[in-house]
Amino acid sequence: MPGFADRLADAVRRKGPLCVGLDPRWESLPRAVRDPFAAEDRRAFALSAFGRKVLDLVRPYAGVVKPQAAFFELFGPPGMVALEELLLAARMQGFVTILDAKRGDIASTATAYADAAFGGRTIDGKTTPVWDADALTVNPYLGRDAVEPFLTAAKAADRGVFVLVRTSNPGAGLFQDLVCDGKPVYRHVADAVAAWNAPTVGDCGLGDVGAVVGATHPAELRELRQAMPDVWLLVPGYGAQGGTAADVKAAYRPDGLGAVVNSSRGVTFPFHPDDPDWEAKVTAAAEKAAAELRG
Amino acid sequence: MPGFADRLADAVRRKGPLCVGLDPRWESLPRAVRDPFAAEDRRAFALSAFGRKVLDLVRPYAGVVKPQAAFFELFGPPGMVALEELLLAARMQGFVTILDAKRGDIASTATAYADAAFGGRTIDGKTTPVWDADALTVNPYLGRDAVEPFLTAAKAADRGVFVLVRTSNPGAGLFQDLVCDGKPVYRHVADAVAAWNAPTVGDCGLGDVGAVVGATHPAELRELRQAMPDVWLLVPGYGAQGGTAADVKAAYRPDGLGAVVNSSRGVTFPFHPDDPDWEAKVTAAAEKAAAELRG
Repeated sequence: MPGFADRLADAVRRKGPLCVGLDPRWESLPRAVRDPFAAEDRRAFALSAFGRKVLDLVRPYAGVVKPQAAFFELFGPPGMVALEELLLAARMQGFVTILDAKRGDIASTATAYADAAFGGRTIDGKTTPVWDADALTVNPYLGRDAVEPFLTAAKAADRGVFVLVRTSNPGAGLFQDLVCDGKPVYRHVADAVAAWNAPTVGDCGLGDVGAVVGATHPAELRELRQAMPDVWLLVPGYGAQGGTAADVKAAYRPDGLGAVVNSSRGVTFPFHPDDPDWEAKVTAAAEKAAAELRG
Repeated sequence: MPGFADRLADAVRRKGPLCVGLDPRWESLPRAVRDPFAAEDRRAFALSAFGRKVLDLVRPYAGVVKPQAAFFELFGPPGMVALEELLLAARMQGFVTILDAKRGDIASTATAYADAAFGGRTIDGKTTPVWDADALTVNPYLGRDAVEPFLTAAKAADRGVFVLVRTSNPGAGLFQDLVCDGKPVYRHVADAVAAWNAPTVGDCGLGDVGAVVGATHPAELRELRQAMPDVWLLVPGYGAQGGTAADVKAAYRPDGLGAVVNSSRGVTFPFHPDDPDWEAKVTAAAEKAAAELRG
């Protein structure tokens, strides 16, 4: 199997940089999907049913999908079954999967999260997959030994991580923008990511340790592209959050690789729950986003 | 129901400051507990069986327990069933429960994590609990709007949060210790926590927004106790990680409240998996830790 960075490059070459975020909020789901699962103990299955339908609809326009763990966790253990099922369906359809769970802990605890995300748990020499995602988002606040177990587990299983560097939310700057030694905290994180990524660079010229950099701060996106030239960027904030296709151009390298641009609500919820044409609207939104991002 | 801070104060007054961390690593479990669950599809039940036994053993010595979500997540959806069951068992026995999941995300995603941890999901006016923990650990890196949804959900359900401020791991300083405007990043986080906590202070003189501060840096523990005088501290790093009872003294206020001190491995794994006396060793370790911490 090629390394994560090269698998991602292949997906972007085939389908373009669009990453479709799968954030299944119950109240936003089409009634046609959720009504068959209205009984309390069946509701979690609506999340994966909706997700699988979205996979079918966006497949011509996106090679990467990003399920958001929180919306599955809200449905408890059956929600986690739905997450497992959706990740498996995405993988079987050839999508590169990024599990957006923003995990972060230390030592053997970080290894437990990482094994759950990547290679699975190993007991008595037998390995059982859990989420089996191609990549996981990771929070760097706990420091070096909170990131390294994720890197080690990713390397062992040919997977990738995306470390939060500069997020797209309005209040992101509270700690990320504090200036230390002449540069903001997020640049310190970016420099660490560049160093962690360097030994992992694959045939495509990019590595397995990516960075999350929001589309809502185009100047910072440009700065961070330069600071991390060999690092895959995962760019949230395009579409519903306000970032435009022009804003995200700074994230690409001259060869067109280097970034995947996420749209969640914009592509997956461009309809009212009662709308009978919801599928056509998802298809149209995905087609439009893919065309805009190819530029 | 009294607010979270007052419930925690009551537990500490009754049992002392010991918090028992429930980190059920499969390979560390007593053989007597795990062997009945050796079949692949039953293994997750060994996690909750062990956890329930530990609850019985430590109940005279601790009023607070902290399950570590990662070790349950490693067993996939059945692991999350075990987590739900263990949290319920702890609550029924009167423990204050801190779910150590270090969640962090923004806006409606953060709300989804927070509702899962605290009040549950609400659909068509009916609320269903998920983890139903008394408190959740939260990662502040994403900033203001990544913490506020957790505070809002906690307030609505009379629960608490513990924000990561200064962690106990050797590599914690990589970003937490960067100096900005004359003070380290962790002090900026501490100041934000103090401000978030202020409106929540209860009868006990402490509030519902706590801080995680490691025992492995006693000088910082003293500094942070002063910087956040009304904030509950959750102190990891005591015992197996190297912090001593003398080191953690700085975390208490003069009235003896103000901190819960976590021990995971030290209390729950003071034995070899083959040891027939493992229960007696857990009891002795809990008794010793509780006595040391009462001082």
